[in-house]
Amino acid sequence: MDPEEFRRAGYAVVDWIADYWTTLGQRPVTSQDPPGAVVAALPAGPTERGEPVEAVLADLDSVIAPRLTHWQHPGFFGYFPANTSGPSVLGDLVSAGLGVQGMLWATGPACTELETVTLDWLAGLLDLPERFRSTGRGGGVIQDSASSATLVATLAALHRASRGRWRVDGIDRRYRAYTSTQGHSSIEKAARIAGLGADGVRAVEVDPRTQAMRPEALRTAIEADRAAGVTPVIVVATIGTTSTTAVDPLPEIGAICAEYGVWLHVDAAYAGAAAVCPELRWSHAGLERADSYCFDPHKWLLTGFDCDAFWVADRGELIEALTVMPEFLRNAATESGAVLDYRDWQVPLGRRFRALKLWFVLRWYGVEGLRAHIRTGVALADRFAERIEADDRFELAAAHPFSLVCFRLRAGDEPSAELLRRVNDTGRVHLTHTRVEGRYTLRLAVGSPLTTEKHVDEAWDLLSAAAEDLLTG
Amino acid sequence: MDPEEFRRAGYAVVDWIADYWTTLGQRPVTSQDPPGAVVAALPAGPTERGEPVEAVLADLDSVIAPRLTHWQHPGFFGYFPANTSGPSVLGDLVSAGLGVQGMLWATGPACTELETVTLDWLAGLLDLPERFRSTGRGGGVIQDSASSATLVATLAALHRASRGRWRVDGIDRRYRAYTSTQGHSSIEKAARIAGLGADGVRAVEVDPRTQAMRPEALRTAIEADRAAGVTPVIVVATIGTTSTTAVDPLPEIGAICAEYGVWLHVDAAYAGAAAVCPELRWSHAGLERADSYCFDPHKWLLTGFDCDAFWVADRGELIEALTVMPEFLRNAATESGAVLDYRDWQVPLGRRFRALKLWFVLRWYGVEGLRAHIRTGVALADRFAERIEADDRFELAAAHPFSLVCFRLRAGDEPSAELLRRVNDTGRVHLTHTRVEGRYTLRLAVGSPLTTEKHVDEAWDLLSAAAEDLLTG
Repeated sequence: MDPEEFRRAGYAVVDWIADYWTTLGQRPVTSQDPPGAVVAALPAGPTERGEPVEAVLADLDSVIAPRLTHWQHPGFFGYFPANTSGPSVLGDLVSAGLGVQGMLWATGPACTELETVTLDWLAGLLDLPERFRSTGRGGGVIQDSASSATLVATLAALHRASRGRWRVDGIDRRYRAYTSTQGHSSIEKAARIAGLGADGVRAVEVDPRTQAMRPEALRTAIEADRAAGVTPVIVVATIGTTSTTAVDPLPEIGAICAEYGVWLHVDAAYAGAAAVCPELRWSHAGLERADSYCFDPHKWLLTGFDCDAFWVADRGELIEALTVMPEFLRNAATESGAVLDYRDWQVPLGRRFRALKLWFVLRWYGVEGLRAHIRTGVALADRFAERIEADDRFELAAAHPFSLVCFRLRAGDEPSAELLRRVNDTGRVHLTHTRVEGRYTLRLAVGSPLTTEKHVDEAWDLLSAAAEDLLTG
Repeated sequence: MDPEEFRRAGYAVVDWIADYWTTLGQRPVTSQDPPGAVVAALPAGPTERGEPVEAVLADLDSVIAPRLTHWQHPGFFGYFPANTSGPSVLGDLVSAGLGVQGMLWATGPACTELETVTLDWLAGLLDLPERFRSTGRGGGVIQDSASSATLVATLAALHRASRGRWRVDGIDRRYRAYTSTQGHSSIEKAARIAGLGADGVRAVEVDPRTQAMRPEALRTAIEADRAAGVTPVIVVATIGTTSTTAVDPLPEIGAICAEYGVWLHVDAAYAGAAAVCPELRWSHAGLERADSYCFDPHKWLLTGFDCDAFWVADRGELIEALTVMPEFLRNAATESGAVLDYRDWQVPLGRRFRALKLWFVLRWYGVEGLRAHIRTGVALADRFAERIEADDRFELAAAHPFSLVCFRLRAGDEPSAELLRRVNDTGRVHLTHTRVEGRYTLRLAVGSPLTTEKHVDEAWDLLSAAAEDLLTG
């Protein structure tokens, strides 16, 4: 495809996306087709001779788009948001067109340096502790996801806890990671990948009222393990748990980690974005004791997946843990010690130029634009929560400090689960569920830049009507 | 940014890329600026109010583009190629615009099914063994890179070798991975991440003539380890090593793995693409005994980074090794058992819709277009190798079955290293280096769709002239 063919086809694809966004609200949020519909609609292999882009776009319309879950839909309230935005898509498009593979500074100097700059910008925007800035011993890097951030934090923690022996000896004794019972499943997965096994993770109990980790329970667990000859390696605390957006008490947890010399990683995958607003920075109090921290601009900060922003207080530890230097990667810049090679901050070797989409977003929205987006989400969640509180059939299941509202029918688990099925079956909205202290709970998470009061009110109207049918039917 | 603003700005970015590709050959392949130039040119943070896209594109031109290594440049001959193409960029653009996060089938049915379909198409295109097709017990998935493919293969192998205990107990005894001395550095990194440590990897010697693994040395290593109470877990064989594109003897290695019950993973990251051409499939002989296999369409098959295609013969083992099921991910489709949830095939939870770019590439080029691309690369490498062979100052350092030529000056290591510096300093080409049996060796890897005979001849002319200066100066 020569550049002029690309230009023509590129306009057509840009048009396709603009039209998709314009009409998105009219589509069902999810597909109702059974498994296998896409497989059945496609041929057994590619054609011998190539086909024009128009043919592919036609199949995109007829085969693919109708069988998607539309994450950017204004009625998508499931999981946590995975928002994108126009500037993010454009930054990603530039990245795809450049096709730079920035594994080393030398293989993409601007790819590396723009990442350093945008992560320092983000650290300033969230008012993160100075120790995470690249101007000192710390620094930030883009990971694909918070799962991978937790994994590399666990590996760096193993490197530290073993005094560097882990790199050579591997797992040669019992190590343990700690998180609350509400910690994300990726913490168990990271521990499994790192060789600790499920038995290597201690789920620390939470305060049933707040769903936040109980520091005294953490201390008890660490002390019991130490007495049993197990080495505590890492504590993963959460700002904004997946289930209910609970905030673990970082000041107390940080003090315990410091006392026992345990790595503290803070997972703020969703709620970290809230810290762009000064009035929501209470959630990050105590972060100055963390060894590492991450949040996902791809969740609630208008940057398309994948973009997890991960910082460490001591980049040297992370690099030592992960570096391998074969001959083919040796180069003068690396040997000068004057550059960062981000391949040493992550699991894979290769890297896309993901800082571009972040740069486009930060510049196009500006500080005020990003704050406005977060404040809109919080206000819409508040608006929805007021409806729940004002209706005797419903109850809130947890506090809603950010843009997630957890609620249920007072009538119990089965009616609540049936309510979720019914509103999702309308195709107008998509919500997901959790369990809070064992009780079935619906989650409504706001985050799309397309979502307005109208969409939140429609969600409420659908829920209220379905509850009426359900409870009287 | 509303859809109409996106449309206008989108056209501008498409134009930017088309113009970049048109003028790419006139740019220096690499930047000559010192570290810090980009950091110094950018402000300390984003502005309070947003900026227009034009301002960002202006900085892209003045600050970013001049400080890149241009991987798509027709004179880029470094590492292995990381090619992209127009159709790949367009597929990726659609993916960015849809913003679908396909962690589960339910969160993007078409995202999951198109991935299954395109990986089955690729398996057909490369004539991979039937056991890797999703229609049986196997199946393919897109990983970010071959590094991650090796890691998940290692984890599945640990699951098997421990009879499922590894998931719970973690690493509780000594395990070992095997690869040749020419295996990629990511194999050591995967073993380190998995908790085996550097001591957990045995580098098996190669035949000095072919640089391919010696099967009898593998057998000796496995037997010695078993006798010492160490459990052999995985053998990583390579089709097309990074240094010289050596091909390990799979039939013999596969027989040894079968005999000792060791997982065989085959890393064909670069050279796998060659198998789209029937005349190059000799390189894949013996693959039917592999438990897993990967290659990177993002290297030599015109698909932008990241796109590693990874197959397993028994997907059940992989899924059991990696699955974690928290409440918030439970859904009817998963519980029906009728769908694939690709989150269980990889390290991270979230996933982009990467099958789209692969689908665009496969359809736009067609089978014949892809074969023509590979054949062009092989022919250009042959052409360059003929120049080397015809010149007494130079010698080939290894066979060149694919599109990489390894060569050096007969005058020795220091002149060869100086030659590389001089030709790279011209800015017209970019080559990298390796060591073969300890001797400094230059590598010229062809892969860009923009590279023609003219560019390969220019590379030769630059090398020849620099050698002249160097040897007589």
